Amino acid sequence: MPDVQWRSAVAGQVDGTTVVRGYPLDELIGNVTFAEAIYLVLKGDLPGAAESRMMNAMLTACVDHGIAPPSVVAARTVFSGGNSLNSAVAAGALTLGDHHGGAIEQAMKLFQELAQAGPEDMAGAARSVVAEHRAHKRRFPGFGHKLYRRDPRTVRMLDLAREYGVGGVHVEFAVAVQDALEAALERPMPLNVDGAIAAVLCDMGFDWRVGKGFFIIARVPGVVAHVVEEWRREKPFRRLPEGSYGYDGPGLRHIPERR
Amino acid sequence: MPDVQWRSAVAGQVDGTTVVRGYPLDELIGNVTFAEAIYLVLKGDLPGAAESRMMNAMLTACVDHGIAPPSVVAARTVFSGGNSLNSAVAAGALTLGDHHGGAIEQAMKLFQELAQAGPEDMAGAARSVVAEHRAHKRRFPGFGHKLYRRDPRTVRMLDLAREYGVGGVHVEFAVAVQDALEAALERPMPLNVDGAIAAVLCDMGFDWRVGKGFFIIARVPGVVAHVVEEWRREKPFRRLPEGSYGYDGPGLRHIPERR
Amino acid sequence: MPDVQWRSAVAGQVDGTTVVRGYPLDELIGNVTFAEAIYLVLKGDLPGAAESRMMNAMLTACVDHGIAPPSVVAARTVFSGGNSLNSAVAAGALTLGDHHGGAIEQAMKLFQELAQAGPEDMAGAARSVVAEHRAHKRRFPGFGHKLYRRDPRTVRMLDLAREYGVGGVHVEFAVAVQDALEAALERPMPLNVDGAIAAVLCDMGFDWRVGKGFFIIARVPGVVAHVVEEWRREKPFRRLPEGSYGYDGPGLRHIPERR
Amino acid sequence: MPDVQWRSAVAGQVDGTTVVRGYPLDELIGNVTFAEAIYLVLKGDLPGAAESRMMNAMLTACVDHGIAPPSVVAARTVFSGGNSLNSAVAAGALTLGDHHGGAIEQAMKLFQELAQAGPEDMAGAARSVVAEHRAHKRRFPGFGHKLYRRDPRTVRMLDLAREYGVGGVHVEFAVAVQDALEAALERPMPLNVDGAIAAVLCDMGFDWRVGKGFFIIARVPGVVAHVVEEWRREKPFRRLPEGSYGYDGPGLRHIPERR
Repeated sequence: MPDVQWRSAVAGQVDGTTVVRGYPLDELIGNVTFAEAIYLVLKGDLPGAAESRMMNAMLTACVDHGIAPPSVVAARTVFSGGNSLNSAVAAGALTLGDHHGGAIEQAMKLFQELAQAGPEDMAGAARSVVAEHRAHKRRFPGFGHKLYRRDPRTVRMLDLAREYGVGGVHVEFAVAVQDALEAALERPMPLNVDGAIAAVLCDMGFDWRVGKGFFIIARVPGVVAHVVEEWRREKPFRRLPEGSYGYDGPGLRHIPERR
Repeated sequence: MPDVQWRSAVAGQVDGTTVVRGYPLDELIGNVTFAEAIYLVLKGDLPGAAESRMMNAMLTACVDHGIAPPSVVAARTVFSGGNSLNSAVAAGALTLGDHHGGAIEQAMKLFQELAQAGPEDMAGAARSVVAEHRAHKRRFPGFGHKLYRRDPRTVRMLDLAREYGVGGVHVEFAVAVQDALEAALERPMPLNVDGAIAAVLCDMGFDWRVGKGFFIIARVPGVVAHVVEEWRREKPFRRLPEGSYGYDGPGLRHIPERR
Repeated sequence: MPDVQWRSAVAGQVDGTTVVRGYPLDELIGNVTFAEAIYLVLKGDLPGAAESRMMNAMLTACVDHGIAPPSVVAARTVFSGGNSLNSAVAAGALTLGDHHGGAIEQAMKLFQELAQAGPEDMAGAARSVVAEHRAHKRRFPGFGHKLYRRDPRTVRMLDLAREYGVGGVHVEFAVAVQDALEAALERPMPLNVDGAIAAVLCDMGFDWRVGKGFFIIARVPGVVAHVVEEWRREKPFRRLPEGSYGYDGPGLRHIPERR
Repeated sequence: MPDVQWRSAVAGQVDGTTVVRGYPLDELIGNVTFAEAIYLVLKGDLPGAAESRMMNAMLTACVDHGIAPPSVVAARTVFSGGNSLNSAVAAGALTLGDHHGGAIEQAMKLFQELAQAGPEDMAGAARSVVAEHRAHKRRFPGFGHKLYRRDPRTVRMLDLAREYGVGGVHVEFAVAVQDALEAALERPMPLNVDGAIAAVLCDMGFDWRVGKGFFIIARVPGVVAHVVEEWRREKPFRRLPEGSYGYDGPGLRHIPERR
């Protein structure tokens, strides 16, 4: 290929045929599922049947959790200002930062850095990682739940990973960290659904840099549905309601004479 | 429900259970595909087997077309400025306006307004719609192709719609418009893949307001893959290369004395 | 200039000197105010003293109106998700659509289309424009106020325009439309501050396409201040508070057996 | 003030009067410049005459540098996809990340952390900071220039700071770091214009968290001018030109039989 400024291995033309990671797009249409096409663009090859089922389960788990999260509020607020659906959905994606949907990426990065110790002494490796994190007062992304001692969605995700045969060393390590954390803290600190998805994505061979993107792909359909609902049901211009906000700056004052 | 400022029928809590359109999220995980979950959030109910297969085909058709479209350029450029993956993906969504991925929504709107004439005289209805549009010099979104007399991807999409049994009056009307357009213009003006997807989505009962969102959902995985590739392979700060740009404003001048 | 893909008359290099609209940037620094630099990039030349003072007054009028508008809510929400300041400010700009800060552009477009009738019979022209708009049930952007019969900020803006000598036919026309509207409606429909700024910008020779941009330039400092305040004072992740939202979709149901 | 979810000291209502940092907005209009209004929202009080002049100089210095930077390319590309001006400007802001306009914030943070050593032994403090940074292979934001041994824009900025009397310990420290860096590296490493603005903003008492926002405020007018120019002069849909891009992924291949 000539020395061009813009090059990509995701998709393009080969001898006049539009290909995605080498496969003709026309051949993919009708022969692979959307979850398989997602796996293909992210990972570079088509998944096996087990990976395909696991992708469907994990993507579905994130599709929408209701109107309360900031990404939905931002998306509906942008639409409400008199903007296009795509601008509103962009605002939803914009909101998905380190504190919102970020745990999958963060946990994947951690698992990929730490799980390399190998499976010989998983429990020992987990204990020393936990001790080191606690010494530096670092948080463990992907652990903790407001309500549950064991997150039922995590249990479901790990059951499916076992059933499909896609779990491996990273899932083992994540569970070992949970046990080491709880032993050290002497209170529940369960692997949550973000942490479980992170561990499974690691075992499926995904780069941690894909983690946030995976969540965005999974959540965008929900954001779209919310924006369409805003469009069909709500009046424009969502100003904060009276009583929900206030000014706490300097009291009334006047510009000094000399100016 | 009390009179709250923010309400949604997409997802939420019923008696402590997280539901999506009424179905417990935990029950959906592992039992529906991601394409079915997308159909559910957008349309309000689960698809049948035929609709599910058609969703997979249409979503896959849009997943990525390479590095050249403006949405990919904008996304990679934003990442290149030293920003997060989610900001870059948001820039991709921002770019998907009226001229980029907008034909599905526009064609759906047109088909839903016009196909109501009913199936009695489809050809006649198409001819009069075409005549009226030409009199007002309006474009028909979803028709025309740079290369082909018949777009092979359209043919594939309509074949699948027929095979799965999801095509109907809107597909018929779209083909009738193609014939009427070509008769009037005396040159090829084929239904393209955006027009075909639009017609099938109409026959599946989707509101035209979903059209742009459908495309965004389908294309976001490609944008994510491009941003991850930018992250892994490219140096920061994509400035325009020397020679590709120029200044054509007023020549060098100086601030007048009196100021 | 060679036939390049990207060309601009806003700024660039002339013989190795960075110029803005032809003026060396180094010469502008310290010799023009920021309001004059804004006028220069938008309009192509430096303003006179009167235009410069009017720019300062109009830009200051829009700088911030508090925390309640959707642009501030969206910006602070995006920051709260764990994102960068520039992403949050971008979300603020994203929110400034047709229903939020859009009246200046809309009124400028209207005034530029309609004020061409000329100053001979301004009152008559205004009456016929109002009659035509009412016949088509079109709204007049830039008119109306929740509280006031006469908006004190409009009065201030028009006084300054008179004092500085920058008002002209568009201001006259805007006032004539106000009178014609109120005569036809038999209730107050005052020119508001957006309408007044729009009329003055028209009289200063700005293209209506600049109207939304003028408002964005003026409001971005306020959005930045809000995001910095969010950064310094608030905890992350602004979820909607309990009790302010609800689910009103289908009741709890289960996936049909046959699937 | 009651315990509300949204509170702000930037602007709001006091006894029915709209105030910005306590000053009635109506009083500000016509009595302060836009640069002073910007200082007010960012810093909480009105500037003196010297600060006001320095604000104008620094904001003007950043207003626009031509079409080549990624923020302009992203903004014009988003508009070109068929989107609104405000979406396009938002894309410009989105692009202003760590590698594009980020040096002011980064240098301010550094100067505020390090300049606390006090003015007794500025040169010694600078030398030890440089040594420590070099030992950890950290970059110094705000230093270095492609062409110049001394950046003429920096010289101008520091001259103005001296003339207006707003420079202080941070400017001194920045120059001391330049000298220590050049002594250690044995090559030119001049304080650049971003570094100079950063040092002056520190001496004017701004929080480093304001640095990126300052640049955004200053650059948005240029981005607006570029988007208006795109609107008036260019055809929609800026696809990459043929020959400037390429596919370097897997060669043409087919979906395995077994699927």
